[in-house]
Amino acid sequence: MKRVKIAVIGASGYTGLELLRLLLTHPHAELVCVTSRQNAGRSIGELFPRFTGAEAAGLQFIDPDADAVAATGAELAFLALPHGVAAGYASSLLEKGLRIIDLSADFRLDDPAVYEEFYDAAHPAPELLAEAVYGLPEVHRADIPGARLIAAPGCYPTSIILPLVPLLRNKLIDPGSIVTCSMSGVSGAGRKADLSLIFCECNESVRAYGLPKHRHLSEIEQELGKAAGAPVAISFTPHLVPVHNGICSTTSAKLLGQPADIGRALEEAYGDEHFVRLLGRGGCADTKNVTGTNFIDIGWDHDPRTGRVLLLSAEDNLGKGAAGQAVQNFNLICQFPETAGLQNF
Amino acid sequence: MKRVKIAVIGASGYTGLELLRLLLTHPHAELVCVTSRQNAGRSIGELFPRFTGAEAAGLQFIDPDADAVAATGAELAFLALPHGVAAGYASSLLEKGLRIIDLSADFRLDDPAVYEEFYDAAHPAPELLAEAVYGLPEVHRADIPGARLIAAPGCYPTSIILPLVPLLRNKLIDPGSIVTCSMSGVSGAGRKADLSLIFCECNESVRAYGLPKHRHLSEIEQELGKAAGAPVAISFTPHLVPVHNGICSTTSAKLLGQPADIGRALEEAYGDEHFVRLLGRGGCADTKNVTGTNFIDIGWDHDPRTGRVLLLSAEDNLGKGAAGQAVQNFNLICQFPETAGLQNF
Amino acid sequence: MKRVKIAVIGASGYTGLELLRLLLTHPHAELVCVTSRQNAGRSIGELFPRFTGAEAAGLQFIDPDADAVAATGAELAFLALPHGVAAGYASSLLEKGLRIIDLSADFRLDDPAVYEEFYDAAHPAPELLAEAVYGLPEVHRADIPGARLIAAPGCYPTSIILPLVPLLRNKLIDPGSIVTCSMSGVSGAGRKADLSLIFCECNESVRAYGLPKHRHLSEIEQELGKAAGAPVAISFTPHLVPVHNGICSTTSAKLLGQPADIGRALEEAYGDEHFVRLLGRGGCADTKNVTGTNFIDIGWDHDPRTGRVLLLSAEDNLGKGAAGQAVQNFNLICQFPETAGLQNF
Amino acid sequence: MKRVKIAVIGASGYTGLELLRLLLTHPHAELVCVTSRQNAGRSIGELFPRFTGAEAAGLQFIDPDADAVAATGAELAFLALPHGVAAGYASSLLEKGLRIIDLSADFRLDDPAVYEEFYDAAHPAPELLAEAVYGLPEVHRADIPGARLIAAPGCYPTSIILPLVPLLRNKLIDPGSIVTCSMSGVSGAGRKADLSLIFCECNESVRAYGLPKHRHLSEIEQELGKAAGAPVAISFTPHLVPVHNGICSTTSAKLLGQPADIGRALEEAYGDEHFVRLLGRGGCADTKNVTGTNFIDIGWDHDPRTGRVLLLSAEDNLGKGAAGQAVQNFNLICQFPETAGLQNF
Repeated sequence: MKRVKIAVIGASGYTGLELLRLLLTHPHAELVCVTSRQNAGRSIGELFPRFTGAEAAGLQFIDPDADAVAATGAELAFLALPHGVAAGYASSLLEKGLRIIDLSADFRLDDPAVYEEFYDAAHPAPELLAEAVYGLPEVHRADIPGARLIAAPGCYPTSIILPLVPLLRNKLIDPGSIVTCSMSGVSGAGRKADLSLIFCECNESVRAYGLPKHRHLSEIEQELGKAAGAPVAISFTPHLVPVHNGICSTTSAKLLGQPADIGRALEEAYGDEHFVRLLGRGGCADTKNVTGTNFIDIGWDHDPRTGRVLLLSAEDNLGKGAAGQAVQNFNLICQFPETAGLQNF
Repeated sequence: MKRVKIAVIGASGYTGLELLRLLLTHPHAELVCVTSRQNAGRSIGELFPRFTGAEAAGLQFIDPDADAVAATGAELAFLALPHGVAAGYASSLLEKGLRIIDLSADFRLDDPAVYEEFYDAAHPAPELLAEAVYGLPEVHRADIPGARLIAAPGCYPTSIILPLVPLLRNKLIDPGSIVTCSMSGVSGAGRKADLSLIFCECNESVRAYGLPKHRHLSEIEQELGKAAGAPVAISFTPHLVPVHNGICSTTSAKLLGQPADIGRALEEAYGDEHFVRLLGRGGCADTKNVTGTNFIDIGWDHDPRTGRVLLLSAEDNLGKGAAGQAVQNFNLICQFPETAGLQNF
Repeated sequence: MKRVKIAVIGASGYTGLELLRLLLTHPHAELVCVTSRQNAGRSIGELFPRFTGAEAAGLQFIDPDADAVAATGAELAFLALPHGVAAGYASSLLEKGLRIIDLSADFRLDDPAVYEEFYDAAHPAPELLAEAVYGLPEVHRADIPGARLIAAPGCYPTSIILPLVPLLRNKLIDPGSIVTCSMSGVSGAGRKADLSLIFCECNESVRAYGLPKHRHLSEIEQELGKAAGAPVAISFTPHLVPVHNGICSTTSAKLLGQPADIGRALEEAYGDEHFVRLLGRGGCADTKNVTGTNFIDIGWDHDPRTGRVLLLSAEDNLGKGAAGQAVQNFNLICQFPETAGLQNF
Repeated sequence: MKRVKIAVIGASGYTGLELLRLLLTHPHAELVCVTSRQNAGRSIGELFPRFTGAEAAGLQFIDPDADAVAATGAELAFLALPHGVAAGYASSLLEKGLRIIDLSADFRLDDPAVYEEFYDAAHPAPELLAEAVYGLPEVHRADIPGARLIAAPGCYPTSIILPLVPLLRNKLIDPGSIVTCSMSGVSGAGRKADLSLIFCECNESVRAYGLPKHRHLSEIEQELGKAAGAPVAISFTPHLVPVHNGICSTTSAKLLGQPADIGRALEEAYGDEHFVRLLGRGGCADTKNVTGTNFIDIGWDHDPRTGRVLLLSAEDNLGKGAAGQAVQNFNLICQFPETAGLQNF
């Protein structure tokens, strides 16, 4: 069974951890390199005792030096790095012949001006933007096989874009009326020593944050605009809730067509997609059914009193919202079965 | 110090439990009667070991018979009963001269037809509707002192009505554009043996429920309509999140005026209200700051990209959303200091 | 790749659910039958939406009738039934030629009198006790291949027996001095509508229960007695803590030998065991590293002040403590690789 | 009503926060000074939004300078500082005429050599040790009124000492056989930015820590030794469990007398104590009944199979285990009713 030599750059956060979890048992991946500036010299199993016993658990973290990474023989690198930092590694590693699946925001936007608006810095590698593929397979599958540089979508964007795209493409909702509330587990805030993230500050707490212009809006609106054929701006409010992982997004918009069109459009778009599970009308997607998996569950409803459509989606922010989707892209790039290594429930 | 003799009818659910917690230490309340069909003969301390040591913890639950309740000398009764059941007790106890603070939905609606539409049954005591006061002190304070029958508002309604009323009264938002997402702790679902409520089904789970026409919409829209001077219909999606108590509501609507008007209108309406804490622009209300209290925290923001106002509120669903607000009404009826027995943090 | 036709009898509790999770992706298992009296006619995916998308998610639950089970062609049945109920099915299905892995307590004890003492009923099938193998592979591996009837050990017993057996066999501790405290996640109490199990009763709660003679003591002491070569009685206190799954057991006993003997004995016993991860001296086993897996982590320490050895173990009560271990037994019976289907992290 | 002017030194941790919560509504306390090096210049309400609306919420934190503290007119200071730091402030403030209730470990031990053994540093103010009273009212009540310097006991010690003292005094258990397992909420680890304390590292995690010689053993054994009339060493294993607050301790020891003696001894010692609630034989103390209060619940049992007594206690680690007990001492020093300001349920 063919195995691709893999590097994970920046493997000590929650996204990196979930990537490792998936790659350690992926039938077509051979983990040959993991990097972490702070943990260089320690093994995967030492840093994450959960993984002790896995075949590659003895692999040691090295410093994230591009030459050193290339020297391990890695053919493809996953970048689980902060935005702004990822782009430089992508450039260097692409030059050395590696393919890149970047989980940061650096290559998600087509327009460097939008990047600058939302990320408060000039884009670090604008020359690569044209080549980068926005790695949302259910929307851009055709562009993925053979790609050198994948920008894996953000967690909130995946949960919001997927339900909306078929409705916008079919002109079933008013693009100016879209309102989304999302609730995210605490892992979405990262694995870092921060007072606001400690157990006693998060447990028994529910709150909105990051108002009113969350960075993820940039890619959400880019993708919605493509589907609508015109610019779209949405109202988006993220919330932090005390679960480990999972995102639940509730989106509503004015219906332009008939309620039954909604179900039909979703079915046409995703009826054959393995990782999109359609719950039908009244189906309230629950994060507990998707944690640890690469599924996104989507239900919908219609409120005749307000004329609004409701879209209810749930995914694992670390799964379909990050590492799972990155592995799905890996499978597509390499033309492995799309579900390889993602058959966990 | 004057103490009013109090009965709590239906004291074995979470609302009843919170009422007991507040009344056991209220300086002007003397608990003389608690009822529970299933727990008759057991004492408060036996059923709720937390309360052992309180002065009235030895009081025994009796069957909820109106004569027996009146025989205890109770002057005022809190009803923590299911809707449909409360109305009958209210009638009987009013006849016996008790005042009533009802925490069910039975007297919240002015129009029995709306009751029937939302609660699927003819109203059990329509003759009392005209007299009942909707017990939201910050909106209807003038009607409360001396009232015989208070309908304490629902938990979701309190968190949604309070931030919206000043904006609707001042015509600052488009009433047809209101969208609310609320997140509630599990105590809101009641204290009952139900598979969907057990720990392993709720923990690590986030989901919408009760779509698309939650019963609380009836009172929410009644009160918003009064403030707007015209009927209002809103889009409302409740969610269940794994916290014990607390409701976080995020409401947005199209701004008609200037952003600064929002803060001003909230300040004018609630600047002198003890139990409404205004967090200002950008203030993200957090349930952890209000659990166990009668406060509601309200922040707001404006998104120039969409032209929408954001209202962010947090309360304890059992506190300001139920038992705390009922006690606030009790204080107002009896002309005690409004904060008596509610000075807990 | 050879696949064995599998039935899961009583598949609607948490143990059954975890068994399904493991078997749905097991390379050598073909799920052909699932039973549930209450859910007959519904599919696995309907009852457990998490599993929608798995190959066998469309399989429908049937009534637990032995003839109907046999008619599905099942070659081996896992019984996830209450004690007392399992034995009858075991007898019937054995007669029909199926092998049995029973997850109840019915065949764990050698002596029917001990069963009667701890389970308050005569043993329902004493004639099968001699044949049944106590399915703790790390202790009784030699007896498992080819067995017709496996009694999969209880969750607490696994976490307590494994660390103690090597010390008792080597006479390193005083058998009369053993004290164990265990902390279990709420899934250990079962998937049932019970007021004491609802979220608001379990969240933010820590307590002992089931004192002083928990049923699991019977099998714990049976196995410890075999290791010690003489009867052993231990002090065992289980606690309920608000996590979904996981058991953490802390055991102490008077050291008879030298502290270094402890590490050596554990290493000799389990150094080559895939599913036992030795953490060494000072290693505090953490349930978060084993949830969802079939691992048990074991650390130890010595307190010279009291002369006591400390044994610290963590496992998933549904994994190594139930379904994972049952699958490990399945692999051994059928002589598949012991880790088949259990390579999840 | 007489009010004592109070300073809280080091008020930004969880113990300080709980002290503020209690003192903000205490009828005999007037909060005049709060200190925090990092938060000087911010008000109580700014740092802890929960307290906004309390009378003294506008009070600003100042630097912890002894002169500045004295200048506020404070008559009594609570020290919620790290061990080693508290002693210096105690000396300075005592000189300036303030009374001190110290919540650190600095004055809990009679013997400076034991301090040095357990805290790895010479005692910073040994001359004050003789004067300091170990502030466990149920054991040392007579020494408290009028004291200048109280050492409020640690959280684990309170939960372990109280159940054991009557049994040791009455020679009902073998002092050499005591084994305790305790489970603590995460607030016990402090309010600090530490990776091991963030939500995703603590949630769904149960583990022992701090083995085998936790610092609290020093004061536990000191007090048990006094009760036994001879040195006592116990086996003590603390565990971290995912609750905000609460400690559950399970202690066992060999019974020397008759089982009924246990209940009798506890009843004699604590039957009249308001803050000790005896649950009787089989009573499994549950942290959820004591959180937010100053109660400790104590149950017990006897296991005839092992001859061991079980003691089951639950308290709030921040309440009876820290701030609540400190306030109880305050009431006793000043001869206020012992329950003043502690009548919360």
